[in-house]
Amino acid sequence: MAKISKDNWFYEYFTDSAKFGIKIREHLVDTKSEFQKIDFYDSYEFGRFFTLDGFIMMTQRDEFIYHEMLVHVPMAVKPDVKRVLVIGGGDGGAVRELTRYRTIEKIDMVEIDEKVVSLCREYLPQTAGKLDDGRVTLHFCDGIAFVRDAKEQYDLVLVDSTDPVGVGEGLFSMRFYEDCFRLLTEDGVMINQHESPYYEGDALEMERAHKKLAAVFPVCRVYQFHMPTYASGHWLFGFASKKKDPLVFDEAAWNALGIETNYYNTKLHKGCFALPTYVQRRLHKAEEETIKKECE
Amino acid sequence: MAKISKDNWFYEYFTDSAKFGIKIREHLVDTKSEFQKIDFYDSYEFGRFFTLDGFIMMTQRDEFIYHEMLVHVPMAVKPDVKRVLVIGGGDGGAVRELTRYRTIEKIDMVEIDEKVVSLCREYLPQTAGKLDDGRVTLHFCDGIAFVRDAKEQYDLVLVDSTDPVGVGEGLFSMRFYEDCFRLLTEDGVMINQHESPYYEGDALEMERAHKKLAAVFPVCRVYQFHMPTYASGHWLFGFASKKKDPLVFDEAAWNALGIETNYYNTKLHKGCFALPTYVQRRLHKAEEETIKKECE
Repeated sequence: MAKISKDNWFYEYFTDSAKFGIKIREHLVDTKSEFQKIDFYDSYEFGRFFTLDGFIMMTQRDEFIYHEMLVHVPMAVKPDVKRVLVIGGGDGGAVRELTRYRTIEKIDMVEIDEKVVSLCREYLPQTAGKLDDGRVTLHFCDGIAFVRDAKEQYDLVLVDSTDPVGVGEGLFSMRFYEDCFRLLTEDGVMINQHESPYYEGDALEMERAHKKLAAVFPVCRVYQFHMPTYASGHWLFGFASKKKDPLVFDEAAWNALGIETNYYNTKLHKGCFALPTYVQRRLHKAEEETIKKECE
Repeated sequence: MAKISKDNWFYEYFTDSAKFGIKIREHLVDTKSEFQKIDFYDSYEFGRFFTLDGFIMMTQRDEFIYHEMLVHVPMAVKPDVKRVLVIGGGDGGAVRELTRYRTIEKIDMVEIDEKVVSLCREYLPQTAGKLDDGRVTLHFCDGIAFVRDAKEQYDLVLVDSTDPVGVGEGLFSMRFYEDCFRLLTEDGVMINQHESPYYEGDALEMERAHKKLAAVFPVCRVYQFHMPTYASGHWLFGFASKKKDPLVFDEAAWNALGIETNYYNTKLHKGCFALPTYVQRRLHKAEEETIKKECE
């Protein structure tokens, strides 16, 4: 839910009674696709940003945090990734980070809304500029159907989804996670947009996603990062695999790649899986519910 | 800077063009002390909270994060702390966490504004309730003068200050840090409210604080936590000592104490010192400026 005031403040409501305000310089795009409401803004504090159905997807100033944590954590754990599937990620930020690895050979990006991509190309070239990389194939279709029908295998699947409402909802389903599991190579990795632990509505979605992912994948771990323009600033990714442990990786090898980052580093990689106690408790509860259901 | 709208939203401005809004149920206290403007509110999302000069000091819902990280990190590193000095911390949250350690014998709390303490006792007993512990002595005076004149030694000094404006400003001075150094026992620890790395104004204060602290203490490390009601949600404490390394501690010993927490745990303790690259860069820059100055 969002609202623009008469004096040019954009508000995102984190809950009915907590909101975040950004002073707008210009409302660049105000449109609808067949899937969702799309708005692009220019702001004083965060540069350009865009919203889908009123929720901030990314801002120029802090998108580096989200995209670096989405891509470099799994790439450090599995440096021999050759084939990647990105679900969602219409802004191109995930693809941009992926293309920094010369060893990646093929990136399939599946985005339901072509309009988001074309607008990001126009207004956010800093993020979308690598969508033209020769290794990238864009598929403008439903990610759920894509993974259901796909026959190829991937070393890495990134689920760069919106919140689990509207078009994003099916990307948080058991069936979807099972299809991702099937598409993954034996030591492949899937990263899931895992919502936030703080506000109750987000925390319930975190639990729901975690419960399902933990039911499908033998390894399902959660890592955190500081994302200033997302609700509470505390955001999570799920790391799922058939056997790969996210904390077993060659720090020196990743550092030798010489990939310059602003947020990610290998020390932080090891630190970000250490979660606050209240977050651990809720994730454990979700895992126990999964186990209980399996035993029934 | 803060503002209340006609429809009962409290706003804290993180910058001129980014703000956080909390829907208010009731404005409980609207007063001034000789030092500052003091307001207490009841809100839907965060329970009761109070502000000094319009800045949120703490809310009932997330104060546990700040206070647990302030106290349990140094206590795990130096479990034999007997004498503690708390500068600021008028809400009593730091003292509450300290009193959970039976081995602590004496807590001196120095708060400049008696009115803050008496209002917290009345409106936030959950936080202020342990100020009556027999080991606590309250000193209603200026922390700067207290540390300048103090003759006693402390094993732990907690600087639980406001931002470095108004009454809090002197608590970020070189002279203040030098006095804290003098008061610390040989392997004592000081924790400093170290501001936030994200918004430029806060990040400059982080650098200033870090530069001075690093000039005074041989060991000066920074750790981070997720604080939803503070600007950007990304907040820092500085860990300073004459020789203690914050990452050398006995995990099992702390866990054996049986102190139940909602945010802090010993795994997180090890993770929270791993900072994002952009934060590391700014802190290193501040440290280099210190070294340069020393060489001149």
